[in-house]
Amino acid sequence: MGGANGKSGHRVWRNARLATMADGVAGLGIVEKGAIAVRDGLIVYAGAEADMPASAGQGAETVDCEGRWITPGLIDCHTHLVYAGNRANEFEMRLAGATYEEVARAGGGIVSSVKSLRAANEDELVTQTLPRLDALMAEGVTTVEIKSGYGLDLDNEKKSLRAARRLGGERAVTIRTTCLAAHALPPEAKGDKDAFIDLVAKQIVPAVAADGLADAVDGFCEGIAFSPEQMARVFDAAKALGLPVKLHADQLSNLHGAALAASYGALSADHLEYTDEAGAAAMAKAGTVATTLPGAYYFIRETKKPPIDLFRRHGVKMAVATDSNPGTSPLTSLLLTMNMAATLFGLTVDECLAGVTREAARALGLLKETGTLEAGKSADLAVWDIERPAELVYRMGFNPLHSRIWRGQ
Amino acid sequence: MGGANGKSGHRVWRNARLATMADGVAGLGIVEKGAIAVRDGLIVYAGAEADMPASAGQGAETVDCEGRWITPGLIDCHTHLVYAGNRANEFEMRLAGATYEEVARAGGGIVSSVKSLRAANEDELVTQTLPRLDALMAEGVTTVEIKSGYGLDLDNEKKSLRAARRLGGERAVTIRTTCLAAHALPPEAKGDKDAFIDLVAKQIVPAVAADGLADAVDGFCEGIAFSPEQMARVFDAAKALGLPVKLHADQLSNLHGAALAASYGALSADHLEYTDEAGAAAMAKAGTVATTLPGAYYFIRETKKPPIDLFRRHGVKMAVATDSNPGTSPLTSLLLTMNMAATLFGLTVDECLAGVTREAARALGLLKETGTLEAGKSADLAVWDIERPAELVYRMGFNPLHSRIWRGQ
Ligand SMILES: [Zn+2]
Ligand SMILES: [Zn+2]
Repeated sequence: MGGANGKSGHRVWRNARLATMADGVAGLGIVEKGAIAVRDGLIVYAGAEADMPASAGQGAETVDCEGRWITPGLIDCHTHLVYAGNRANEFEMRLAGATYEEVARAGGGIVSSVKSLRAANEDELVTQTLPRLDALMAEGVTTVEIKSGYGLDLDNEKKSLRAARRLGGERAVTIRTTCLAAHALPPEAKGDKDAFIDLVAKQIVPAVAADGLADAVDGFCEGIAFSPEQMARVFDAAKALGLPVKLHADQLSNLHGAALAASYGALSADHLEYTDEAGAAAMAKAGTVATTLPGAYYFIRETKKPPIDLFRRHGVKMAVATDSNPGTSPLTSLLLTMNMAATLFGLTVDECLAGVTREAARALGLLKETGTLEAGKSADLAVWDIERPAELVYRMGFNPLHSRIWRGQ
Repeated sequence: MGGANGKSGHRVWRNARLATMADGVAGLGIVEKGAIAVRDGLIVYAGAEADMPASAGQGAETVDCEGRWITPGLIDCHTHLVYAGNRANEFEMRLAGATYEEVARAGGGIVSSVKSLRAANEDELVTQTLPRLDALMAEGVTTVEIKSGYGLDLDNEKKSLRAARRLGGERAVTIRTTCLAAHALPPEAKGDKDAFIDLVAKQIVPAVAADGLADAVDGFCEGIAFSPEQMARVFDAAKALGLPVKLHADQLSNLHGAALAASYGALSADHLEYTDEAGAAAMAKAGTVATTLPGAYYFIRETKKPPIDLFRRHGVKMAVATDSNPGTSPLTSLLLTMNMAATLFGLTVDECLAGVTREAARALGLLKETGTLEAGKSADLAVWDIERPAELVYRMGFNPLHSRIWRGQ
């Protein structure tokens, strides 16, 4: 079992404290005197150092963690990271007192991001997105989901998704792509939502699937976007192509989007500020993860919180993600996002950490591959200069990452 | 005029966009095609490149900024950066449902920070504080105010202030120290606030002043801390020693702390959530800066905002600071703090940027030395990879700093 590409494929991180985040284990799955053995990018052992089989460590390069904590590499399971330009000008206008109408008349809003993205070529999208990806990775992120949704026509949706895929070649990180063509109505649709949904369901989603550009299909179900019936047509198309679905649901009002998502066995329903108990129950039954997005809640000064207690009561799994996007969450720190989930939504430290590791992996359909420190999974690790895991949630604007390992390297 | 210490003392940053933040100029004092000439650590010219006198640039080392923005180096004018340990455990307990009483019984609250600080020696304080200072500096901060206030006896207050002073020798940054002995009642005072205030006013403040350890004197005026009458005794002592004062005022209730601070010509009154119109009017008349601390507001989930409109109406200058501390604001990002000031308090982009440059300098009594890009001031600069200054306020968890210059280096 030699290392691939001339790199050593066999390593042991020892003298570490582990938060394994293993499923079904209480709390963080803490191992105080732990070790992780890795071969060819996969974890072959994670547990007490004293119990490690000799075979797991034999001939391995050894890294002494000096008592540092190791968590699974962090996972940001909901981003719109690929975009062009930014919308700082709108932010500035609104703080100076401009109304939404005035911002719109000045060319602002999502159409501004659509215009910028369409004007940028694929190389420019990659170049502009890399600093944002680097910011996430600098905090130990090893997997990032990226949605399209500023293209809103076939060529530009494909361009976005190709750019997202390319980021995975530029950096040591796993990228999962999501087709969010049903994000907003483009100007050329002239207000005809049904015709645009036809285009999405019959042309864009099938073409994207044919090119293997998307790992899932998403939509924005809201009064200002698309109705549950329209989203169902997109989901039917995705299902027919074998693509899993997810949904921006119940963010600004309760259109029962969470229940709709659950009825399609969605990987996740996201935002969920207005989700009711029936929605939570449906999600629990379907195994649909509740992805909370406190950055958007904070940035748009929303006051209604997602029903965390309902999710707990019904056993809905909760993920935490940045929703990184130029309009409502220009946020590129998953550590800060955890702090917001705790401070603004009242998630516990354990829920926050599970939300950016195990549950985020579940929300991407990747729980067999990553998200916990367990044998058989990808060796995606974050090593931290902290005394206790709560510090990762408690601090604001501080990065205690010591090192980051993706697929064993 | 040769460079001191073998370093070149004569440089020009050209091809830059300047936000000079000059006082009395509209907005950010923008110069689109700007240059800054520096000799021996001082700005000798800041303005249009075309208008720069030949003498300012002659023989200088030239830095091409390629159109980047330059602002004054940022100033964090209110921190408790020197402390030992952290209080992530309390944060975790409270999220898990513990009451304040339960946290206190477990040894939490400010007494926990007092205990940790007293147990640490000066070297340990420096070592533990440096990563926090480095986080601030990584975002272009060139001046940091640091308060004592976890020592609460003469030796430990002096130890804190010495550690704070030493940080300025360890890093290329200006440190201003503040004696905050009147922060909380130490356990050994056994509830006797008046006797402790006697100790502060008659022993601690004079001794600290004699050793030149403090640039100002501060206190916490609040029901849970000290009364206005008690604070007045501390301020009288400071005034007799020629030390300027400032005050933690009106954070949790209106004790008319802002007016008290103004009556002593305080440099600043800080927090101010409950300040009334009379307080704002008094501050305006006295030239006392209103230092807003949105990180603490956010972290303790306060809902009453400081009266920004009153400050505007009365012409009170507003600063923005992290309040970095382990109990109520474990925040080490001044960029994020600006975002919070905008998002949570409604400060405009211009007010945020002035709040961490010009007005922060004013709040430290340093406006003649730093805080704007003007001839005669210290060459404290931050160079940014941004298209417009609003990006510094709009983004969350992203650091677009290109380079940082302190005293010309
Ligand atoms: Zn989203
Ligand atoms: Zn403070």
